[in-house]
Amino acid sequence: MKSKKFSDLFTRLREKHPLVHHITNYVTVNDCANITISAGAAPVMADAPEEVCEMVMYAGALVLNIGTLNRGQIESMILAGGMANDRHIPIVLDPVGAGATRFRTDSAQRLLDELKITILKGNAGEVGVLAGAEGKVKGVDSHGVTGDAVKIARNFARDAGITVVVSGITDIVTDGKRILLVDNGHPMMGSISGTGCMAASVTGAFAAVSDDPVIASAAALAAFGIAGEKAASGARGPYTFKVALFDEMAALKPEDIASGAKIRSK
Amino acid sequence: MKSKKFSDLFTRLREKHPLVHHITNYVTVNDCANITISAGAAPVMADAPEEVCEMVMYAGALVLNIGTLNRGQIESMILAGGMANDRHIPIVLDPVGAGATRFRTDSAQRLLDELKITILKGNAGEVGVLAGAEGKVKGVDSHGVTGDAVKIARNFARDAGITVVVSGITDIVTDGKRILLVDNGHPMMGSISGTGCMAASVTGAFAAVSDDPVIASAAALAAFGIAGEKAASGARGPYTFKVALFDEMAALKPEDIASGAKIRSK
Amino acid sequence: MKSKKFSDLFTRLREKHPLVHHITNYVTVNDCANITISAGAAPVMADAPEEVCEMVMYAGALVLNIGTLNRGQIESMILAGGMANDRHIPIVLDPVGAGATRFRTDSAQRLLDELKITILKGNAGEVGVLAGAEGKVKGVDSHGVTGDAVKIARNFARDAGITVVVSGITDIVTDGKRILLVDNGHPMMGSISGTGCMAASVTGAFAAVSDDPVIASAAALAAFGIAGEKAASGARGPYTFKVALFDEMAALKPEDIASGAKIRSK
Repeated sequence: MKSKKFSDLFTRLREKHPLVHHITNYVTVNDCANITISAGAAPVMADAPEEVCEMVMYAGALVLNIGTLNRGQIESMILAGGMANDRHIPIVLDPVGAGATRFRTDSAQRLLDELKITILKGNAGEVGVLAGAEGKVKGVDSHGVTGDAVKIARNFARDAGITVVVSGITDIVTDGKRILLVDNGHPMMGSISGTGCMAASVTGAFAAVSDDPVIASAAALAAFGIAGEKAASGARGPYTFKVALFDEMAALKPEDIASGAKIRSK
Repeated sequence: MKSKKFSDLFTRLREKHPLVHHITNYVTVNDCANITISAGAAPVMADAPEEVCEMVMYAGALVLNIGTLNRGQIESMILAGGMANDRHIPIVLDPVGAGATRFRTDSAQRLLDELKITILKGNAGEVGVLAGAEGKVKGVDSHGVTGDAVKIARNFARDAGITVVVSGITDIVTDGKRILLVDNGHPMMGSISGTGCMAASVTGAFAAVSDDPVIASAAALAAFGIAGEKAASGARGPYTFKVALFDEMAALKPEDIASGAKIRSK
Repeated sequence: MKSKKFSDLFTRLREKHPLVHHITNYVTVNDCANITISAGAAPVMADAPEEVCEMVMYAGALVLNIGTLNRGQIESMILAGGMANDRHIPIVLDPVGAGATRFRTDSAQRLLDELKITILKGNAGEVGVLAGAEGKVKGVDSHGVTGDAVKIARNFARDAGITVVVSGITDIVTDGKRILLVDNGHPMMGSISGTGCMAASVTGAFAAVSDDPVIASAAALAAFGIAGEKAASGARGPYTFKVALFDEMAALKPEDIASGAKIRSK
């Protein structure tokens, strides 16, 4: 696929340096902050109900991640998300662990119901549960993209009016009409904690400078995946890989996306 | 001591890839997640009262760490721990800072009273306070294993019906009958934040695949200590050491434990 | 300026190994813990209202950072700060994001009103807002020290009876009478998350062993800045820089401060 619109978006991200407001988990929050900076954006983390509406108004995108959710945090997400919707600020939702506990599934569902989510990014299991197709999309991570996974994601995106991203060896990006598949990335990205959360942060950064969530998501996943590919080449193990991942993301150039993005239409 | 049962346990850990549920502090939580992955297990962090009972049911072990405790978190620990006890899922308790404040001492004591803890892992000061022998076990970190420390740990383990691990230059592992001493590790492990918490995570990973908490604890401490020894060899300072620690833990092989474990019976 | 009193203070810090109690944000807390250790002090993070007063009594300094503030945390800061004031333990306040939201501005103001803060450390925007000179001190980060910034900081310090540190390419340190300017540091310190928070931690470590907050602040900023300069020399990107920053801070010697500190009186 012609990669110019993806690399141009990266150029724009680096020029605009948008603020990405995160309400996220305390496990990988530092990684999310650093990858956001490396991508070319500015992170802010704030979750107090007293301030989230004010903070999100400065932001180019809002990233909601339920990795270590609690009741108060979900309320803050609803507050911040409502303001983001009013201001047409894109929202990326990472429904970490949806399907694992009822609290996670219900909270993710509530965020989808009460907010206009722009991009829902999860693995096959998480997206499958929220699409009401539990179990049917399992196996994508290990077996590649099945026809089922693409169809479920597409139908879910169409019915919900959102962009759905299913992460895996091949990432699926769809708004119900267009379907893009992204083949960038490296198995070492699974050897550390936080790459899923970081992918959501990078997606937020790209979404902040684009009106097209499908293009923004695919560009973000390609950029982050290419950084992962480069980082893996010299890594002696998971943490030298992690260190290199931030360095490579920061060093990434639009032409790296133009030449290295593996994005195809389906 | 014959190391085969320790190295075999590591083989089993890598094969089984158990989930280790953490309710832990926000300072070192990312390190705990990454060392769990490097050891061969899968971490999950969840502390909301609405979900901890459901989450722990998937886990092979539960790690409770009071490093940045608060009232709500202790309640979640009680809930998750109760379910873990019902399901015979081993619990590792790291009573960080017990003795430093009444809140820490009382909370650790309450967890010991209301739950059946499998492995209590602390430094000499923390364990001494909980054993009711405050002050008597001080000095182990700097002066090696004193007879007192071993005796207090053994008696405490016997009386409480738990396995007690006292970390130090020489780690003590005892269930009140058996006493194992582990001499692996490196002084650089004290030059970064989090190695104590990480040791508890690795202990949880090993406990998840073993019915013998004494063997699991000693194997875990030896494995983590050997990774520390290897990491120290090329480190230029504390953070290159930290980076290497995860890499070495991930690269560790059962034969490294077979050849490198310094575990002796007392 | 004669650097001996700054390097002597570093010698004292390494000898005394003071405890630095942090009530801080969950984004950069691990970095704060590690830089505190690398500087030669011992970090403890505790924020439960049940224990903060007891914990701070062991400490040589208290660092308050509102990066991810919430209502309960501010109450704990008030409690711990009151005890610190009673015991004449110095308090460093980092009013992260003051000016960005009303909740942050009001919380920082409340801490200044209800506690005797020893050192207020912020960027030009944050300090300007709290000094009631919003907007007037903007541009220091990019344009160097303006006369306005120095004057506003000096007057604010004098009126509030505190030491004010304005971070920037040139850091300003003033107690209303003396004005020191610190030119150490490196642009790469802005390429990662957390250097501002870490600077506050290092300042707390130095303040714990000094009766002179102006000298302590300048010494801390010079030391941390020199570590940053050294770290930048071999860095391939932001995260290899980060790794090196901890290593260099740990390897720093008093003579590095004696020879490398760029501190001048104004």
